[in-house]
Amino acid sequence: MCQLLGMNCNTPTDIMFSFEGFRRRGGITDHHADGFGIGFFEGKGVRLFHDDKPSANSPVADLVRAYQIKSENVIAHIRKASQGQTSLANTHPFMRELWGEYWLFAHNGHLIDFSPEDGGFYRPVGSTDSELAFCHILNNLRRRFPEKPDEADLFAAIAELTREIRTYGLFNFVLSDGDCLFAHASTLLHYIVRKAPFGKARLLDDDVMIDFAEVTTPSDKVAVIATLPLTRDETWQQLAVNELAMFRQGDIVRTDKPDPPVYMSVEEGLEIARAAGVSV
Amino acid sequence: MCQLLGMNCNTPTDIMFSFEGFRRRGGITDHHADGFGIGFFEGKGVRLFHDDKPSANSPVADLVRAYQIKSENVIAHIRKASQGQTSLANTHPFMRELWGEYWLFAHNGHLIDFSPEDGGFYRPVGSTDSELAFCHILNNLRRRFPEKPDEADLFAAIAELTREIRTYGLFNFVLSDGDCLFAHASTLLHYIVRKAPFGKARLLDDDVMIDFAEVTTPSDKVAVIATLPLTRDETWQQLAVNELAMFRQGDIVRTDKPDPPVYMSVEEGLEIARAAGVSV
Repeated sequence: MCQLLGMNCNTPTDIMFSFEGFRRRGGITDHHADGFGIGFFEGKGVRLFHDDKPSANSPVADLVRAYQIKSENVIAHIRKASQGQTSLANTHPFMRELWGEYWLFAHNGHLIDFSPEDGGFYRPVGSTDSELAFCHILNNLRRRFPEKPDEADLFAAIAELTREIRTYGLFNFVLSDGDCLFAHASTLLHYIVRKAPFGKARLLDDDVMIDFAEVTTPSDKVAVIATLPLTRDETWQQLAVNELAMFRQGDIVRTDKPDPPVYMSVEEGLEIARAAGVSV
Repeated sequence: MCQLLGMNCNTPTDIMFSFEGFRRRGGITDHHADGFGIGFFEGKGVRLFHDDKPSANSPVADLVRAYQIKSENVIAHIRKASQGQTSLANTHPFMRELWGEYWLFAHNGHLIDFSPEDGGFYRPVGSTDSELAFCHILNNLRRRFPEKPDEADLFAAIAELTREIRTYGLFNFVLSDGDCLFAHASTLLHYIVRKAPFGKARLLDDDVMIDFAEVTTPSDKVAVIATLPLTRDETWQQLAVNELAMFRQGDIVRTDKPDPPVYMSVEEGLEIARAAGVSV
């Protein structure tokens, strides 16, 4: 299983603490060693880094760490190839422009027999089911909305497309247009909203501690989304199975969740990924 | 005036020697100090680096140098802002997907009163005339060719669009789909085709020497395109005013050139850029 990382904040924030733990799963503390990618929105622009080296040893990851990029929306992905050969064109996150905005998408899972019609506009460059799903979402949004719709309509449309696509298999994803961030769990996706009063936390994958009070202001709000919790000393929430959440300004603003919600154990989530042929 | 750099080869090649001289124009030997960008095709994938720091001091440029990426097609740009505020969204090269391929575009010049109709597909994210011209080219290619046409039709279509857009002002550009590279000169654009027997060259902007015979095989063919020649000890060719050239496999394969061709002196080119309000 690949691992996803997302961040959505109300002020440009340095993701390095979370990224440091996350990247170590790319070859040191875990086996997600077929490359990684991370995209940072800065205003309407995107800074995108892809690498087909394991993230734990990647010079690109070193740069990302050294560079201390501050961003309101970040999407990152460590890849363990399950479909499509390992190549730069198959490295998440994928990027396209829609309505004069860049969109980023990263997927963790595996879609079976998913072959939508050519949507007329966006086409995959690589050979992954993930990029195909991303193109399918954007093709449908563009067809339905010549201009960007309001938040409620956008969320409803993405929820509907998500319900359709997840019938084909495992569809954990994070998606952002630089304004809000969508996160969907087929199996495992955790999140935390950090806000005042800020405390301390220690990375699960490394002996690194941070005191968020020292690096934030009281009005900061930072949501971090990850396949598995990244820190101890903090209480991570979990998205329910088949829940789609929309984050804006560092908090969940909309959610589409089965009633009653079901929460999957980490063991069960990993087992499902294994059974689906997704490497873990 | 911004500076352009392009490379098109018949085998994946390290652009670092040329890039080293080019990047020093971003703040050390010249004044192109509003950021830079470079995009490398690797197969169908693209590795894209943007920075709003001067390229001579940029940690991203340091990474690019250290990383020794080998690519068959590269497009780079050092920016001196002439239109549009300096921001990541305005940093060249720009990227879009067309026909399931990524396209990269970088522009040096300034278009006046260029405001094509919304082409229905591609829209600028930033505020530059350059990205607008790129979107205009892609919108027209897509409208004309639902699938990628053959080389002759593609070249003819891009030549026609170029003739249209350059009526609005200075339009030096490099454009690539990862297969071939198009270069157009309104004023200054130089190129060199390096092939066996390979010689030595020394950077104009730095006391660095390279012996290409040591880093190539006899069948290598590498075309480097740059606003101004990057090396001494080599004979750079110049594109004629209003010439569009198509490079493939390290050499020019098609050209659309006024008859008789006119070649602009460097002094004249810089003076025209100044007069057009493009910073030099």
